[in-house]
Amino acid sequence: MDRVAEVADLVTVALDQLLPRAEGPESRLTEAMRYAALGPGKRLRPFFALEAGRLFDLDERSVLRAACALECVHAYSLVHDDLPCMDDDDMRRGRPTVHRAYDEATAVLAGDALQTAAFDILLHDDTHDDAAVRCELAARLSLASGARGMAGGQMIDLLGVRDDLGGVARMQRLKTGALFTYAFEIPLIIADASGPHRHALISFAHDIGLAYQIVDDLLDVEGDAAVLGKAAGGKDAALGKTNFVTLLGIDQAKSRVAHLREQARAHLDVFGRDAEILKASVDFVLDRRS
Amino acid sequence: MDRVAEVADLVTVALDQLLPRAEGPESRLTEAMRYAALGPGKRLRPFFALEAGRLFDLDERSVLRAACALECVHAYSLVHDDLPCMDDDDMRRGRPTVHRAYDEATAVLAGDALQTAAFDILLHDDTHDDAAVRCELAARLSLASGARGMAGGQMIDLLGVRDDLGGVARMQRLKTGALFTYAFEIPLIIADASGPHRHALISFAHDIGLAYQIVDDLLDVEGDAAVLGKAAGGKDAALGKTNFVTLLGIDQAKSRVAHLREQARAHLDVFGRDAEILKASVDFVLDRRS
Repeated sequence: MDRVAEVADLVTVALDQLLPRAEGPESRLTEAMRYAALGPGKRLRPFFALEAGRLFDLDERSVLRAACALECVHAYSLVHDDLPCMDDDDMRRGRPTVHRAYDEATAVLAGDALQTAAFDILLHDDTHDDAAVRCELAARLSLASGARGMAGGQMIDLLGVRDDLGGVARMQRLKTGALFTYAFEIPLIIADASGPHRHALISFAHDIGLAYQIVDDLLDVEGDAAVLGKAAGGKDAALGKTNFVTLLGIDQAKSRVAHLREQARAHLDVFGRDAEILKASVDFVLDRRS
Repeated sequence: MDRVAEVADLVTVALDQLLPRAEGPESRLTEAMRYAALGPGKRLRPFFALEAGRLFDLDERSVLRAACALECVHAYSLVHDDLPCMDDDDMRRGRPTVHRAYDEATAVLAGDALQTAAFDILLHDDTHDDAAVRCELAARLSLASGARGMAGGQMIDLLGVRDDLGGVARMQRLKTGALFTYAFEIPLIIADASGPHRHALISFAHDIGLAYQIVDDLLDVEGDAAVLGKAAGGKDAALGKTNFVTLLGIDQAKSRVAHLREQARAHLDVFGRDAEILKASVDFVLDRRS
């Protein structure tokens, strides 16, 4: 989808300018941060933030900086999730993971410093004139990514504490859902939007986030390792982990995705024709093969 | 020193209230965060922040919350530094390190979520009424702890890129100096202080931070493993790493500490009798045996 590719380029260029440059004896760290954050990626979360920002006619610079911060947190989480003590993945997006391209210690530090960079970017004056907006953007990011958000979800995932659909759904809501939702909170915070607009976008975020995870679980079973750029073929099942597909079966899982796809689009009706690109992105996001 | 012990208790109680509670399936994560942050510790950085805050007659609640955020970053850095892929330490302050008490994955996540918690605490309305102050506190913390601060210093330390005194000093300034300095920036930001007061406290921070590191290097050579609660006996030298003591020799290193001790105290003369406790803390901080 053209607009997704366009935003991905925009975000990569902006991140390149925002991330610390490789210089001084610590340059191995800044290089690893850049390797992790500037490599190939669909930049879906930034896309959602920027596209939702268009609905409110916002200053793109503010949304773009916040979207870059969000992408830094996403990148940090991938670097740490790939570590040998976590998911132990050697490949990510067709390239060696950070601990394979560099080493484990550098990967731990690069993830750490990418998280810090996210807050650094958000809190800088250039993100928004109003300090209250910058604070709110950063405070919501910390909620979405900490122990009650992404990190908590990864803990649940590692422990495998998810015997039923409720447990799997809770894990998804924390591990991947919180950052998807934050993508839409960015324009909502900057626009100071509430009421039906807020409700529509947050509901859209929940549906698309959940559907995205079910598709991920389907790819885990059906995916082609060459396309995914990482190990596939039912990794969760092999590890004895339950997920949406092991619990629902392939057909039921696909039917849920279809239902969420329609429901997500319907939430956007409140924006009329303005939301057409966002609506069209639903298929792009969910029909992925990797 | 009574006041240091008093502040340590105050900070531990406040951290206990501020950190997420262990509940839900992710409770292993919040437990590990609490294990790392609430265990025994001198709370030197919070002590400096609170004691310097007294010089400006500030609302202690604001300083205390910011000091707790700083302590969370310090705690996260220790958890990650202790990992097998980093310094590989089994013991810290007489207790098993987090990856020994729990496991490596939990230690990585606990460090991650402690960093996030630091920003969460700082950015909350309760820290200060003025969002511009909260933003400044959080922005300075991100500078002090990221790739151009603590994380960058740890990278240099791991690489051993420090052949001469300049290199070792740069490593120290980033790895431990930046957070020491931030402790004094907390009251300076909240008091909106500049001029001689700012200069005095920042200079004090630089001297005490540098002296603290030289003492650390002296303890690495001379320290008693039982007192330190971790491996001692010239670990740096055994690893072929240069530090202040391997470069200067024990006598020269001790004489530098003595010089910095006097110089640090002299910086505080501008505050008159108000700085007596801070002056007295210099000996307490530098005469440590662990």
